[in-house]
Amino acid sequence: MRGKHLLGLRGVSSDEIYGFLNAARGFKEISRRTIKKVPSLRGRTVLNVFYEASTRTRVSFELAAKRLSADGVNISASGSSTSKGESLLDMAQTLDAMQADVVIIRHSQSGAPHYLADRINARVINAGDGQHEHPTQALLDLFTIRERFDRLEGLEVALIGDVKHSRVARSNLIAMQTLGMKVRMAGPRTLVPPEFAQAYGVTICDSVEQALEGAHVVMALRLQRERMASGLLPSLREYAVEYGINAEKLEGTRHEAILMHPGPVNRGVELSPDVVDGPRSVILNQVENGVAIRCASLYLILGGEQP
Amino acid sequence: MRGKHLLGLRGVSSDEIYGFLNAARGFKEISRRTIKKVPSLRGRTVLNVFYEASTRTRVSFELAAKRLSADGVNISASGSSTSKGESLLDMAQTLDAMQADVVIIRHSQSGAPHYLADRINARVINAGDGQHEHPTQALLDLFTIRERFDRLEGLEVALIGDVKHSRVARSNLIAMQTLGMKVRMAGPRTLVPPEFAQAYGVTICDSVEQALEGAHVVMALRLQRERMASGLLPSLREYAVEYGINAEKLEGTRHEAILMHPGPVNRGVELSPDVVDGPRSVILNQVENGVAIRCASLYLILGGEQP
Amino acid sequence: MRGKHLLGLRGVSSDEIYGFLNAARGFKEISRRTIKKVPSLRGRTVLNVFYEASTRTRVSFELAAKRLSADGVNISASGSSTSKGESLLDMAQTLDAMQADVVIIRHSQSGAPHYLADRINARVINAGDGQHEHPTQALLDLFTIRERFDRLEGLEVALIGDVKHSRVARSNLIAMQTLGMKVRMAGPRTLVPPEFAQAYGVTICDSVEQALEGAHVVMALRLQRERMASGLLPSLREYAVEYGINAEKLEGTRHEAILMHPGPVNRGVELSPDVVDGPRSVILNQVENGVAIRCASLYLILGGEQP
Repeated sequence: MRGKHLLGLRGVSSDEIYGFLNAARGFKEISRRTIKKVPSLRGRTVLNVFYEASTRTRVSFELAAKRLSADGVNISASGSSTSKGESLLDMAQTLDAMQADVVIIRHSQSGAPHYLADRINARVINAGDGQHEHPTQALLDLFTIRERFDRLEGLEVALIGDVKHSRVARSNLIAMQTLGMKVRMAGPRTLVPPEFAQAYGVTICDSVEQALEGAHVVMALRLQRERMASGLLPSLREYAVEYGINAEKLEGTRHEAILMHPGPVNRGVELSPDVVDGPRSVILNQVENGVAIRCASLYLILGGEQP
Repeated sequence: MRGKHLLGLRGVSSDEIYGFLNAARGFKEISRRTIKKVPSLRGRTVLNVFYEASTRTRVSFELAAKRLSADGVNISASGSSTSKGESLLDMAQTLDAMQADVVIIRHSQSGAPHYLADRINARVINAGDGQHEHPTQALLDLFTIRERFDRLEGLEVALIGDVKHSRVARSNLIAMQTLGMKVRMAGPRTLVPPEFAQAYGVTICDSVEQALEGAHVVMALRLQRERMASGLLPSLREYAVEYGINAEKLEGTRHEAILMHPGPVNRGVELSPDVVDGPRSVILNQVENGVAIRCASLYLILGGEQP
Repeated sequence: MRGKHLLGLRGVSSDEIYGFLNAARGFKEISRRTIKKVPSLRGRTVLNVFYEASTRTRVSFELAAKRLSADGVNISASGSSTSKGESLLDMAQTLDAMQADVVIIRHSQSGAPHYLADRINARVINAGDGQHEHPTQALLDLFTIRERFDRLEGLEVALIGDVKHSRVARSNLIAMQTLGMKVRMAGPRTLVPPEFAQAYGVTICDSVEQALEGAHVVMALRLQRERMASGLLPSLREYAVEYGINAEKLEGTRHEAILMHPGPVNRGVELSPDVVDGPRSVILNQVENGVAIRCASLYLILGGEQP
């Protein structure tokens, strides 16, 4: 990945994906040390440009940069000169002129990172663009799955909820197809596009129970509050009853199945509180692995060898 | 204190308090060097989580972390995913999963830091919770007093103002009782709870003049603007006349008495402008000592020996 | 400049200006390395206090501090305890007590940095105060001009637009007079004060074309949106036609002339889009050089020798 951008997982090969996952192993180990810091990216400039608020993703990237000894600067849309009418491109060219090595960008518009990548010298990492992709989230999900099952190919994944609007789902669907994983989806009809069946080689199920049957991995998607108000959904209560995952529904999965969620969870909506903190939940592992994947992404893109 | 939380000063022994004060001496000296930095906490992760705005406390902790070479990340409620409905616990578990060593938290709800401390692996430092405690403020106050008088036991302290709503007062009252200091309180009846007399072994005075009589230390408390509008107070002008501290009232104290305030001061309300900048004022010493106390807190909690 | 403040360019000698420009050369080279970091200011405390939002200036100073290995902390008016009624002076005294080495301040009130400089121990750098001065911007402009022409004295500069309200213009006018440069100004009559002719030894022209005739340097000023609504201006469209700079107007300049703008540009207003990105534009060079000038400023003020 040396010198490449990380804009999405479309077009990223199986080998490249495994390259990220392998590198992240070393960085996870480093993050568990007392002294969680290596000099790999000393003196490199990493800019965190967030046009949408996000604590966990922003902090995850910020910690990754610090643990690699890079110099990081945060820029959030509020308090920035976007209020002075500066366009995204002007902003990016400005940061580029300051000799940024990497610009990490989260933006509400799909394609914003690609637009930048074509126009600046710095490497661009997409930290989530609209409803398009969120590649480091999918990589950390895959790392977490592989950590439990020691393989990815052939695993059965149940993807539950608002697939349609989810950049997390989209990046996972692309990578899981590349890696030969078997994905089944379930959710409200309005939120599970039938055309995804063909596009990503997945099966659409009539019920959550059907999707969960025999799954290795249950991946619940976050229900954005704004969807709830949009008419695309029955009431929250009905959503929870029909599509919310609880201990009973999990009984249909394999006995070693894991439960994932990109966070933050709407407890009692996507997941019942007991399963969030239950033995199958790897939600906090996902968070931990997120830092490791972001370390690996920065490291590989800036040309490092495996640590 | 190695491996302990710093949630409040209740239950903290006299020896432990002196441990903080002794360690802070060394860190104060370091902060006065040209190169104000030691490698003690290199590679440690310190998260500053502020649910209430506060420049001085946040910057003080942030500088302390930097001067110890720790990696720090700031998280403020605005711009965080609390706007996505993430609860305090979810936030803390997330940070914990990212291998935080210390979570410094300021929160409007009393007990929030204790709630976290029971549920996460990272050490928790309370940077002010509701009307409950603000332990590092009391420690820096004690450090400042001791610096002038070379002892704490037996000193006479006049605590003036809104004791009822003040976490600064509460932490000081607890520690001063532990250390055998003699505290007298004065303020509007609505803001000085009579039950504190027994609870903290203090004397309630009828007037500021009476409280100040022979005091070594005068500690004025900040009057929160919101109290002024709440009906608990006479007019601001009347407050200033009756409870505001000026040069004339200070004449009743010992000749070596010092004047303290946790800041920021409402000039002309709690203190007349001349005494804020007068010879007895140690208000800026408190600020300087705050960084040293926060260095000591981080250092001792993370297991360091005295520097 | 060792131990001095950098409040403005009035009273700064030609030798001192060249001192900044010479030092910045070395720092520009450092910023182009893979490892853009030197240990020069390790353990120094640099505080970025911004009472007005500004991405590019804040990030430029923040990167400069990091590339010199200083410890930096950002404070913005929003989220600070200014909301608790803390005055500018209280804020500055507080930061000073925390042993800040340098306080970088941007403030909407002209003279705010000078007010601080008289009252605190830390060195103060003015990052823009009201309509008064913005010295590091003028220094980076001069650096950029000198980079192209290898000299400054005698060069002809056309300064176009809202001179009246521009701190960028004021700092440049002062320095250009000191350095013996020949400045001509043009813009709407309401925005180009006739008294500047005498005060700064410049010529006021009747048209942009006249000002541009034979110029080495064309410096367009940013038109603040608030001016557009204030009645000081004809319509935006009329402004663009009469005072906006496009390729046609640039034909009147010298063949080696450069086009400058402090950014962010209102494309289609001060400059036509084609000239922003055209061959004469050095706007992104200005951004790059800004980091180098801020490195030089921090370095020289804190007592370093030339790198």
